Amino acid sequence: MIERGITVMILWLLGSLMPVSGDDGYRLWLKYDKISDRAYLKECSKALNSVMVTGDSPVLNAAHEELLAGLGGLTGRKIADVKSITRGGVVVAGTFESSPLIADLLPDIKTGTTGDEGYLIRSVTQKGKRIIVIASEGDKGVLYGTFHLLRLVSMGVSLKDLSVIERPAVALRLLNHWDNLDRTVERGYAGFSIWNWHLLPDYISPLYKDYARANASIGINGAVITNVNADALVLTAPYLRKVSALADIMRPYGIKIYLTARFSAPAEIGGLSTSDPLDPGVIRWWCDKAAEIYSVIPDFGGFLVKANSEGQPGPQNYGRTHADGANMLADAVAPFGGVVMWRAFVYDNDVPVDRAKQACNEFIPLDGLFRKNVLVQVKNGPIDFQPREPFHPLFGSMPSTPLMMEFQITQEYLGCATHLVFLAPLFEECLRSDTYARGQGSTVADVIDGSLDGHFLTGMAGVANIGTERNWTGHLFGQANWYAFGRLAWQPALSSASIADEWIRMTISHDPGVVEGICTMMLSSRETAVNYMTPLGLHHIMAQGHHWGPGPWVDKGRADWTSLYYHRADTAGIGFDRTVTGSNAVSQYFPPLNNIYNDLATCPENLLLWFHHLPWDYRMSSGRTLWDELCYRYNDGVLQTEGYYAYWMTLEGKIDAEQYKHVLQLLKIQVKEAHWWKDACLTYFQTSSRRPFPAGIGKPDSTLEYYRGLKFYYVPGI
Amino acid sequence: MIERGITVMILWLLGSLMPVSGDDGYRLWLKYDKISDRAYLKECSKALNSVMVTGDSPVLNAAHEELLAGLGGLTGRKIADVKSITRGGVVVAGTFESSPLIADLLPDIKTGTTGDEGYLIRSVTQKGKRIIVIASEGDKGVLYGTFHLLRLVSMGVSLKDLSVIERPAVALRLLNHWDNLDRTVERGYAGFSIWNWHLLPDYISPLYKDYARANASIGINGAVITNVNADALVLTAPYLRKVSALADIMRPYGIKIYLTARFSAPAEIGGLSTSDPLDPGVIRWWCDKAAEIYSVIPDFGGFLVKANSEGQPGPQNYGRTHADGANMLADAVAPFGGVVMWRAFVYDNDVPVDRAKQACNEFIPLDGLFRKNVLVQVKNGPIDFQPREPFHPLFGSMPSTPLMMEFQITQEYLGCATHLVFLAPLFEECLRSDTYARGQGSTVADVIDGSLDGHFLTGMAGVANIGTERNWTGHLFGQANWYAFGRLAWQPALSSASIADEWIRMTISHDPGVVEGICTMMLSSRETAVNYMTPLGLHHIMAQGHHWGPGPWVDKGRADWTSLYYHRADTAGIGFDRTVTGSNAVSQYFPPLNNIYNDLATCPENLLLWFHHLPWDYRMSSGRTLWDELCYRYNDGVLQTEGYYAYWMTLEGKIDAEQYKHVLQLLKIQVKEAHWWKDACLTYFQTSSRRPFPAGIGKPDSTLEYYRGLKFYYVPGI
Repeated sequence: MIERGITVMILWLLGSLMPVSGDDGYRLWLKYDKISDRAYLKECSKALNSVMVTGDSPVLNAAHEELLAGLGGLTGRKIADVKSITRGGVVVAGTFESSPLIADLLPDIKTGTTGDEGYLIRSVTQKGKRIIVIASEGDKGVLYGTFHLLRLVSMGVSLKDLSVIERPAVALRLLNHWDNLDRTVERGYAGFSIWNWHLLPDYISPLYKDYARANASIGINGAVITNVNADALVLTAPYLRKVSALADIMRPYGIKIYLTARFSAPAEIGGLSTSDPLDPGVIRWWCDKAAEIYSVIPDFGGFLVKANSEGQPGPQNYGRTHADGANMLADAVAPFGGVVMWRAFVYDNDVPVDRAKQACNEFIPLDGLFRKNVLVQVKNGPIDFQPREPFHPLFGSMPSTPLMMEFQITQEYLGCATHLVFLAPLFEECLRSDTYARGQGSTVADVIDGSLDGHFLTGMAGVANIGTERNWTGHLFGQANWYAFGRLAWQPALSSASIADEWIRMTISHDPGVVEGICTMMLSSRETAVNYMTPLGLHHIMAQGHHWGPGPWVDKGRADWTSLYYHRADTAGIGFDRTVTGSNAVSQYFPPLNNIYNDLATCPENLLLWFHHLPWDYRMSSGRTLWDELCYRYNDGVLQTEGYYAYWMTLEGKIDAEQYKHVLQLLKIQVKEAHWWKDACLTYFQTSSRRPFPAGIGKPDSTLEYYRGLKFYYVPGI
Repeated sequence: MIERGITVMILWLLGSLMPVSGDDGYRLWLKYDKISDRAYLKECSKALNSVMVTGDSPVLNAAHEELLAGLGGLTGRKIADVKSITRGGVVVAGTFESSPLIADLLPDIKTGTTGDEGYLIRSVTQKGKRIIVIASEGDKGVLYGTFHLLRLVSMGVSLKDLSVIERPAVALRLLNHWDNLDRTVERGYAGFSIWNWHLLPDYISPLYKDYARANASIGINGAVITNVNADALVLTAPYLRKVSALADIMRPYGIKIYLTARFSAPAEIGGLSTSDPLDPGVIRWWCDKAAEIYSVIPDFGGFLVKANSEGQPGPQNYGRTHADGANMLADAVAPFGGVVMWRAFVYDNDVPVDRAKQACNEFIPLDGLFRKNVLVQVKNGPIDFQPREPFHPLFGSMPSTPLMMEFQITQEYLGCATHLVFLAPLFEECLRSDTYARGQGSTVADVIDGSLDGHFLTGMAGVANIGTERNWTGHLFGQANWYAFGRLAWQPALSSASIADEWIRMTISHDPGVVEGICTMMLSSRETAVNYMTPLGLHHIMAQGHHWGPGPWVDKGRADWTSLYYHRADTAGIGFDRTVTGSNAVSQYFPPLNNIYNDLATCPENLLLWFHHLPWDYRMSSGRTLWDELCYRYNDGVLQTEGYYAYWMTLEGKIDAEQYKHVLQLLKIQVKEAHWWKDACLTYFQTSSRRPFPAGIGKPDSTLEYYRGLKFYYVPGI
């Protein structure tokens, strides 16, 4: 009785003494707060009282440290660090090779089951003692398994009969940072670059390790730390020392560092007169540079290159092909095991008839000409990270070349870091799209994971939304997009719903009602954004330059950077005719998809104006005219955001106060900007449609002149 | 026995269960961690168990909230919020007017004792109950008194017989933020601007309130939130709404918002053809603009102006004087109670014979011509925030004009945010300097606080070192400089030692040995920096542009921006001859100071080369030649930094681990850069002195060519 009294008193004291501080978001989904469910806490305190990590390497030590800290936080107890099993409740983690015990506990597991990055988690009993084993053939697998177990506990999953086996579907799971050396971040909306170049290599910010932990926890194993609009300076010796210091921090978390290579570097910093990829001096310069890099960063990942696009230099400047350029760099890093990721996002110097067709036109002829350590990195859609695009027709069209996915986590075209838009549904939609490249069932995911065409060098990249904001991503829900990217890069078959569920439980609440409510909001949020920005297949009608806010009237500058080029609205109708009688972009898709898109009867309505120019009175499946449907879609998007705001207000007192207030303010901005999008677009398109707003559509707040006249300065992200 | 057992067990559990998280510096000196000294904790728990705040206003509510949070944290107990005195241990806070109880408890206090910002803190006993009273004639005084009490408790001062009476010596105690609207910060080394203009006014970052709290805690009552190199955009309606939102957050903490006024704004954003201050249209535009500002920010503080300096527009562009310009703006804000702070930091378009003389030449003739609501803001020294300068000769020279001090908290010339340089000794040295303006004992502090010439509009500004870095200032010890500025603006007579003592106890440790050790290091650190950068009166020999690192060889560009202009080293000697036979800058000081500086026999050695050009073999008071002394001083500076590093290593385990590691890394950089300074300067000056290094001076690490060849990109702060 006295003991029980003490326990109760202690719990009461702990509750009252520990400051109830707001959650500032820094810990992301790795909060490791003490389990609040008493029964589960009891179960975990029993099943997870000790840790035994066998083997000794930087990666295993990181796993060890994370296990102790994570389980310690979750159970609220000091976790014993043991060298042998003398009682139950031990988590044993290690590689088969380093630990005879593990091999002993898992006698049925054949070599090759996990590979270096995969792992098993299993509840076993040895001599009556209950043990949880995390095992892998590689140190990194043990680390990933560790984070998996911590995720299960953070989510409140029962530990009774654990039997997990995982291995990643894709080899390279990378963040792409569009971070400049002056710490600005192109399309970054969460403050500035977390890389403090000035103080590197001497000052190691605590941020770096926490960044590495967060990535490792979702299986990300590489980071391209510099902008694709590249600065050759990062390849000079003083900067390589800085990069090396970052690589040292990342290495124990299984993360390799990659750099963007400015194609003109030999001339810019090497003192050569040319950067022609076939020039012997240039070839030698890159070989020497690669050797220099690997001498300070032995596990350097390789180069990401944006060439001959949007003003970046490239092999075409010297009359050479993308393959010539990529192969020259690939040969330089090949002796060290490096790769080259060559972006397919290219702009002709001449304005094409249809910008959507350009990458296929340039790259399909090069299929088979790339070195084995080259991946071509392709954006999910043929234009540029729009709220909705069809999948990129390159997927499936270059069977002899590993194609790497490039998703954009940062919300360049999706309201920046102020709009709640959960991107997993966008990623999922693309990955599950059927290319029909080898008949039905040839999904984009099958291309990316190499299974369709038998590639083992595979990859998925996400353009990071990370900055110096305390919560890393500016918007709390931006964290969910980082999280979702990592989880999908590991396993493209995961559903958006399961990812949202994981993230909410680890980040916000375990309350089933709250989880369900937030999950519903998240899962609909992408469609909501499509509706208030670019419904029915509209695209690229945002403000020029910064891409924040609506700009359907943009008609200045290079034609394929204007909005008019894309929406083609006139008094007759609206939409980009990409059918066989139009730009014929549909022909870049495999049958029967080319016909499905080409035929109005089968083209999905959510891509209608992407592929077709249609009269304003075109009859939609709803029975409405196209004009009325457009109005209703915009209006629906606005109403949805208002619903999110109203829903969020119901969470007051149910979730952390600081999280509550933070998101509430941002949702209010989103409602305001959704109105702005709807009103600006509809008043603009009305000048073409010359039709009244249908019943029930809210009157615009202002005139078209007002919206066109808005000017913004210092919009973040450029 | 059981009870005792329980208590011990609880304490043990608390110790083991609460995560030992590192201190990331965010909480500054307002940590409110639970008191660790048991006896003192007991005393405080008894004396401070309840709070009774009388009156209801935003400022009083802020004081109330702070008292509850602060005392709650410090005592580890929930503080009772009471409406009447029913037991002892109550802190009663309020104004005399709002609280009959307070008037009752302090019957001896006459009206006018505290003023609106001053306060009393007193331990009293009423009907046997011990009470601590915080009282003021104004709400702000109550707030300041609250922070004073919290400081005393944080420092561990006995509460037995409190009898404090304070009032600020200076009316305007302002931070000057050199923050640009794109969030870069000129001379900012702690990340980027904390003002998120893009998200204002809709998103209110939690940073803003904590910034306000920190400032209020040290008596700062105003913030100029934009750069003196001004952008007229901030005066447009959309930005004023953003400014207004910030003002709303600052108001409860007694902080007024000020803006920098771009002198050419009428032409730039007003559509006028001129910005001539005597033009009726321009006058009207500024009057209308002032009215517009006050309509959204009723307590707007006023304007800070940098005019006709370093390319900024100003009245001289139209043939008008600084007084014409300042008075025009002053008239615009006068009806609303605003002020104009007009900077005396001006550069002629023509290179002057001696840059140090320029401000006096331009401004002394204008004395008496400024409106009553104008202050002239003068940097502490006549050049530009050097490690050491004599005080600015304007102090004392404009008796009819309120002169406001401008100190630089951000370490533009003092190693940026990577060097540990405690600036209180620099501020103190200047404030205590005797101008002799009205005979001996006419200190700079007497000028600034208005007592010398009978001014009531008085002020002190500090150029902020604050940015988005988690710990606000980049270097933990940068916080001490922010703290010191505030404390000295409140009370210029405070000693550096007492300020350091306060800050260390609140920020790092109460351990007497640790406090003493760190205090010793801090108090010597400014002299150390002078030694390894610019000993013996040298000045402005840093790298061009970014001012980071040595650049004694800088000879390109405008003459008075080169190093050669200032050190004038040649084979004959070194130093700037400002004697009567030189530039005669000494004549700008009052007698006898002009003679003291002019005469080699009396000129302080630490300003020797500021006022004299001397042969390399000049015999110093140490008996050494000037050259040898110069070498020894540089070397001493380096040795001192090595001593700091060695000392800091002894603190491992004695202070917070994250603080320890953070500062250790920075001290290592400081040692490296001190070596760099010494070696670069001495190898350079040796080309003039043509003398060997004396015995005991470490051999330079590299050649002069190496140091001259170093190039840096993207140095922060520009």
